[in-house]
Amino acid sequence: MTDYPNIKEIREASKRIAPFVHLTPVMTSETINRLCGAQVFLKCENFQKVGAFKARGAVNAVYSLEKKYIENGVATHSSGNHAAALAYAARCRGIKAYVVMPNNAPPVKKAAVAGYGAEIIYCEPNQQARESALAGVVERTGAAFIHPYNNHLVIAGQATAALELFEQVPVLDTIIAPVGGGGLLSGTALTSAAVKPSTTVLGAEPERADDAFRSLQEGSIIPAGSPDTIADGLRTSLGDLTFPIIYEYVSAIITVSEEAIIEAMRLVWERMKIIIEPSAAVPFAVLLEKGSIIRGKKIGLIVSGGNVDLDKLPWLNKMGDIK
Amino acid sequence: MTDYPNIKEIREASKRIAPFVHLTPVMTSETINRLCGAQVFLKCENFQKVGAFKARGAVNAVYSLEKKYIENGVATHSSGNHAAALAYAARCRGIKAYVVMPNNAPPVKKAAVAGYGAEIIYCEPNQQARESALAGVVERTGAAFIHPYNNHLVIAGQATAALELFEQVPVLDTIIAPVGGGGLLSGTALTSAAVKPSTTVLGAEPERADDAFRSLQEGSIIPAGSPDTIADGLRTSLGDLTFPIIYEYVSAIITVSEEAIIEAMRLVWERMKIIIEPSAAVPFAVLLEKGSIIRGKKIGLIVSGGNVDLDKLPWLNKMGDIK
Repeated sequence: MTDYPNIKEIREASKRIAPFVHLTPVMTSETINRLCGAQVFLKCENFQKVGAFKARGAVNAVYSLEKKYIENGVATHSSGNHAAALAYAARCRGIKAYVVMPNNAPPVKKAAVAGYGAEIIYCEPNQQARESALAGVVERTGAAFIHPYNNHLVIAGQATAALELFEQVPVLDTIIAPVGGGGLLSGTALTSAAVKPSTTVLGAEPERADDAFRSLQEGSIIPAGSPDTIADGLRTSLGDLTFPIIYEYVSAIITVSEEAIIEAMRLVWERMKIIIEPSAAVPFAVLLEKGSIIRGKKIGLIVSGGNVDLDKLPWLNKMGDIK
Repeated sequence: MTDYPNIKEIREASKRIAPFVHLTPVMTSETINRLCGAQVFLKCENFQKVGAFKARGAVNAVYSLEKKYIENGVATHSSGNHAAALAYAARCRGIKAYVVMPNNAPPVKKAAVAGYGAEIIYCEPNQQARESALAGVVERTGAAFIHPYNNHLVIAGQATAALELFEQVPVLDTIIAPVGGGGLLSGTALTSAAVKPSTTVLGAEPERADDAFRSLQEGSIIPAGSPDTIADGLRTSLGDLTFPIIYEYVSAIITVSEEAIIEAMRLVWERMKIIIEPSAAVPFAVLLEKGSIIRGKKIGLIVSGGNVDLDKLPWLNKMGDIK
């Protein structure tokens, strides 16, 4: 337990990253509250630098390391938002970034990474291909590997979103964060346990990528495989750093259908006039689909990002069982 | 001139409507600023009640009138946002609302009006059909007609958006508001003239609905006809109250292409993660298409609304010359 990021490290991360990230707003909607029968607070990381909370962890990692450890640049594999975040953080610090991306990543995310000046190395969309491509890059360049979530400094950085949320809304009965690799959820849980232990922390996950749900049931990490969910940020497996934190500090992982994710995303667009990506809609989908657990409560949702391919909106696709 | 809403009336309107409308945020984006070569401040009326600035004017009108003048309800004709706004204001005050709407109004706007409990009367999409249908409603019900823009109290209400903007961003070189019937633009101009006379006020209008542009050139109101523009809120003609204010206080009307409107709308969605409707993108389109006039300046844009039919996004249509 002692090697989890502690609240002192999380507060230091918050100060360290402040010049490079936004203090994002918390938004509310009377319509959404009425619909959910709860008071819902959206921590809008879709307004964050690079359009996602990932800027927090990447900036914290890149600015925590001594220059000598990263003078050859930094490298990572990522389905998109961490890639853009690391590229952004590297540009801020004036070092090189190498990013291994699956060749099926959304074009808007590829463009963002390239736009920050990173070098992109494409690979097949599975964990093994990513890791092997990354090993090649590190071998070739000597760059420091910054894992998208299974990294102490990254977790401490992601934890700062919840830290801000508790400053903005001091009393929350429940916080719900999406879970992919678990960096955001584990960070949220660590902050909550330290700052407001009475707050329940829940993870939200697509049914079609329920590896975190099953991992908690089994008590050990179940790999995600190549899950087919619209929530492209949540297709990854838990790591050996994030899993034990989630296992210890998260009350439950709640899974939702693809239909609920799409409905949640569309409702937020229509009613709140903000753009959130499918992965970011997963916590709100919990309220829509499993709403009985939160009636009357004060609920904080970490809206993880807003990077959407506007040419491919899910409610306009013909995808069989997905409307 | 003396019968224009004065700054005292505008300030009173601001206090009167405060319990029923949002103080909307001003948003900025470093990417947008870099792209425009200017400091751009978006006054986000897309986050306003009913999703548009129209809530201001409607609430001001409905709450300014003595009960005896509106006890039979209120009625209007509107392409959408004023309709929802009047329905909302009437519901707040507990009176009936009758709304004449063109039968081609976007479904999302029809649903909003019905959702606030107003009675909808459909008509053909032209000025004459609207006015005749409205006369019938007023005859039948005895409701008080609240014009969508050619109304002293409505103009005073719309003027409060700029009043707030100047409180939020005291120094602006230029304010740009879209112009349809002219309620928002005339109100913006009156506020600006009183509060910050050094600020230039510009109107933004689609080339395909350039009746305000031509009206200012001619020195008299040129009717809009039935213009074919994606900016559905800006298809109406100026009124005999709004025209003289705009003629006196607005420096210029600047027209933009449909392509620029769509590009502006998409850029704001992608970069700022907020949903704005086509009409609301027209001022930003001025910056994109006629940007040379604003280089290096501090520019306030009134982002008029965010009510978009998410099933019909303009960049996904095949519309001949519109991409």
